[in-house]
Amino acid sequence: MIKAVLLGTGGMMPLKDRALSSLLVSWNGHSALIDCGEGTQVQIRGTGMSFKAIDLLLLTHYHADHVSGLPGLLLSVGNQGRTEPMIIAGPPGLERVVNGLRVIAPELPFPIELKTLSARDTDSLSLFGMTITSFPLQHGIPCLGYRLHLPRAGKFDPARARENGVPLPCWSVLQKQPETVYSGVRYTRDQVMGPPRRGLTIVYATDTRPVPAIAEMAEDADLLVAEAMYGDPEKGESAQQKGHMLMHEAAALARQARPRRLWLTHYSPAMPDPETWLEQTRAIFPATELGTDGLTADLAYIDESDAAPS
Amino acid sequence: MIKAVLLGTGGMMPLKDRALSSLLVSWNGHSALIDCGEGTQVQIRGTGMSFKAIDLLLLTHYHADHVSGLPGLLLSVGNQGRTEPMIIAGPPGLERVVNGLRVIAPELPFPIELKTLSARDTDSLSLFGMTITSFPLQHGIPCLGYRLHLPRAGKFDPARARENGVPLPCWSVLQKQPETVYSGVRYTRDQVMGPPRRGLTIVYATDTRPVPAIAEMAEDADLLVAEAMYGDPEKGESAQQKGHMLMHEAAALARQARPRRLWLTHYSPAMPDPETWLEQTRAIFPATELGTDGLTADLAYIDESDAAPS
Repeated sequence: MIKAVLLGTGGMMPLKDRALSSLLVSWNGHSALIDCGEGTQVQIRGTGMSFKAIDLLLLTHYHADHVSGLPGLLLSVGNQGRTEPMIIAGPPGLERVVNGLRVIAPELPFPIELKTLSARDTDSLSLFGMTITSFPLQHGIPCLGYRLHLPRAGKFDPARARENGVPLPCWSVLQKQPETVYSGVRYTRDQVMGPPRRGLTIVYATDTRPVPAIAEMAEDADLLVAEAMYGDPEKGESAQQKGHMLMHEAAALARQARPRRLWLTHYSPAMPDPETWLEQTRAIFPATELGTDGLTADLAYIDESDAAPS
Repeated sequence: MIKAVLLGTGGMMPLKDRALSSLLVSWNGHSALIDCGEGTQVQIRGTGMSFKAIDLLLLTHYHADHVSGLPGLLLSVGNQGRTEPMIIAGPPGLERVVNGLRVIAPELPFPIELKTLSARDTDSLSLFGMTITSFPLQHGIPCLGYRLHLPRAGKFDPARARENGVPLPCWSVLQKQPETVYSGVRYTRDQVMGPPRRGLTIVYATDTRPVPAIAEMAEDADLLVAEAMYGDPEKGESAQQKGHMLMHEAAALARQARPRRLWLTHYSPAMPDPETWLEQTRAIFPATELGTDGLTADLAYIDESDAAPS
């Protein structure tokens, strides 16, 4: 299961009632935060979730509204007593940006590992069972989208175990560990398990023009979080100039990709009422939801009841 | 007249309902901001006051909760179209800190002038009629208090003008400009004006132990804004170790200095209810007010009605 909390939904500048866009994703006691603008730490505090559990910070790009909260976040994580390394990943320029901002957070009780991701191709990270794929967006400066995928192992398959001649006492052992030895013979997990089942996938894409990669990455995802800087279709030219996306463009990508849910975010401060445009966006993609600060999803594996027999 | 707005009252970390400590001071269309933690720009937006008018940023020290909002502030000032220089002043280390944080705000439509102030002695700046004096505090790292003084010219004095033989047609001219020439003779303002009158003074002192300089600077001030990290007198040891001040210590300084008002600020996140300690603080200094986010004072010259005859 994955818990996803949309911590903020604003673009450009933090407002009193609309924090800057970022997403906190948690699974199995671990967390990844995508972007960290000014005020993100306040939003995290509001969820009651742990700072200490933030293993990974994924930065989309280095405009201030996506990264200015970094020093405060690091200090808050440190205050909660983290000692394990934290990984910070982002497009090229990462080291310069993190080192610059750390001028006011030089001493931390945990090490930081920087992972610079490609600005031109997909790139990937694997962490605590989560596979993270970054992909280039189109925003004027290097900017990355992220696909977070939690794979799910296959179901235990007794017919397969029998076919492979795995002795009965090894069956339950191999559901818990990758291999075992019995009467001097080595048996492996893949000899008793069926093919991997559908996992859980979240895709996050701001700030960007609507590029095909977003639809490709979000295909059959459980949740697509996408930028919707403006609702008004007449803002097309402005969006194009500034490298942003309109609500109807995000919905059109979702219509192609067919994620189970679409959350819109990163609203312009000049758009106080995104609801104005919701109906016509849902006409394009019915499962569209307007992101609001604190919007939460508990994503569960489909058919959670089909657990393997023990 | 000076308008002073306490933008936030928290120390260490921003909370949902308690922004980080900072003070916005405005006079004659100009503004000075003291400290700029994460979220300060949101608080400024809440006052409806101008970002563009911020001529001066005074930094007390470089702990993150006092300066982390700098990049966002600079961008917001730029968004409002400022082109005049902004002065940023603070203790030694200023250039390193500002340059570090500007990694995410490299391009601004206005120049920045840095003024590094002494960490050991008083230092001063004069800007748009305001005299600013910095003075060293005691906080473990270099930390400055600030005294902002708006002087007030003397009243027009006809007896003095006559004594100095200033011709009648020069009287009103010299109330508006420093000098004039009449029948080939040069006359100056000081020949027609009485001695300077009481101006307006604000003193700001966080984060610090209660040092005598605070009481000296705040003598007869209109407003003293002072740190009150904890109310509980039993927190004395912790305050001493961390270089902070208790509510009763701030009140004792005020009892010496006799400012017209005392605002307490920079509360610990571990002190949700400063009211608990108000009564016993007022027993020491009756004009104590608990700072709250947005607390505002319009400080007027005493006896505003005694304007010079024109």
